[in-house]
Amino acid sequence: MKRLLTITILTAMALTSCNNAPKDGQKADGAAARAVLENIATRTSVRAYTSEPVPEEMVEQLLRAGMAAPSAMNRQPWEFIVVNDRVALDTLAAHLKYAKMLTQAPLAIIVCAEKMITTRDGVTRENHFWEHDASAAAENILLAAHALGLGAVWTAASDPERSAIVRETLGITGTVTPLCVIPIGFPAEDPAPKDKWKPEKIHYNKW
Amino acid sequence: MKRLLTITILTAMALTSCNNAPKDGQKADGAAARAVLENIATRTSVRAYTSEPVPEEMVEQLLRAGMAAPSAMNRQPWEFIVVNDRVALDTLAAHLKYAKMLTQAPLAIIVCAEKMITTRDGVTRENHFWEHDASAAAENILLAAHALGLGAVWTAASDPERSAIVRETLGITGTVTPLCVIPIGFPAEDPAPKDKWKPEKIHYNKW
Repeated sequence: MKRLLTITILTAMALTSCNNAPKDGQKADGAAARAVLENIATRTSVRAYTSEPVPEEMVEQLLRAGMAAPSAMNRQPWEFIVVNDRVALDTLAAHLKYAKMLTQAPLAIIVCAEKMITTRDGVTRENHFWEHDASAAAENILLAAHALGLGAVWTAASDPERSAIVRETLGITGTVTPLCVIPIGFPAEDPAPKDKWKPEKIHYNKW
Repeated sequence: MKRLLTITILTAMALTSCNNAPKDGQKADGAAARAVLENIATRTSVRAYTSEPVPEEMVEQLLRAGMAAPSAMNRQPWEFIVVNDRVALDTLAAHLKYAKMLTQAPLAIIVCAEKMITTRDGVTRENHFWEHDASAAAENILLAAHALGLGAVWTAASDPERSAIVRETLGITGTVTPLCVIPIGFPAEDPAPKDKWKPEKIHYNKW
């Protein structure tokens, strides 16, 4: 009887500690919080991939993560180009000096944004925050990729030279502007995350 | 005996399915991945806070998340100002039109970056990617805050007017530049996350 009681208590403890995944409208609990913090801490740039295609379901999870980012005035200026065409990936790789790993990647997501906005009084001007919004979306995609067991790396594409290459290769028109090209695939390398903790970068209440 | 067996099996199942948190060097598994994606999907701007101070341990977790962000050429140009001084918070609130919630917040983290870099050949020029790097750090902080049960909101501070206010209030010198002010506290409101999923923002292989 004592043994039965012990087992029952163990079961209850195990089941209780198991109820970890955050549900809609419920605060993240300890295990979920640890999973999130661990995922942020262990994400690192992965630049080598297997040839295995990224399943469509995962591509959607990555895009959903991107679109969940915050944006200034909730304008959501981002646009996402999903590239899995071998010719397009190789063409980008051929012209982008820091994105040669695209020759191995089965997938890339190009995070862009509409950089112009028309204000309520009809004036069209640059949205000063398009890069911030697109960057938050890009970071969400990197974190989601890492959580899903994918490898990815942020390669810049917003300077005039690389922007022109991406725009021409993918036929981007108007004032939609690429921020970055993110090659993605199942990792063929397992790089250690960098330790970037530098307490000297923290300032209290004043500079 | 049959009952004992059932309980033993239940215990084993519960313990097995419980082994979810990703460990160092181990790929994130299903439950951890779900926790990460759910955290990204349910994060939303929280603009009302209780007066409860944010524990120091949590402040460090937020800063560690910020510093784990990727940065161009791994330059890590970010600097973080942690503000919990009531006068400083109220002064910022008084002058920043979109950050009035600072009067209620027990804490703010101001994400800044050194916007100038000196290249190997001794030329000092603007780092074109400082806003991207600081934005990725800011997004990590927002995600970590949500995971920890805190509420936070990204308020812009990079335009000349708000930048000058933040620089003067916090005594920022040189070419360190604020990107955003993030008020943080335990939530006193529970806003529903916005549904921002827009398939029309996805383009396949070309614009």
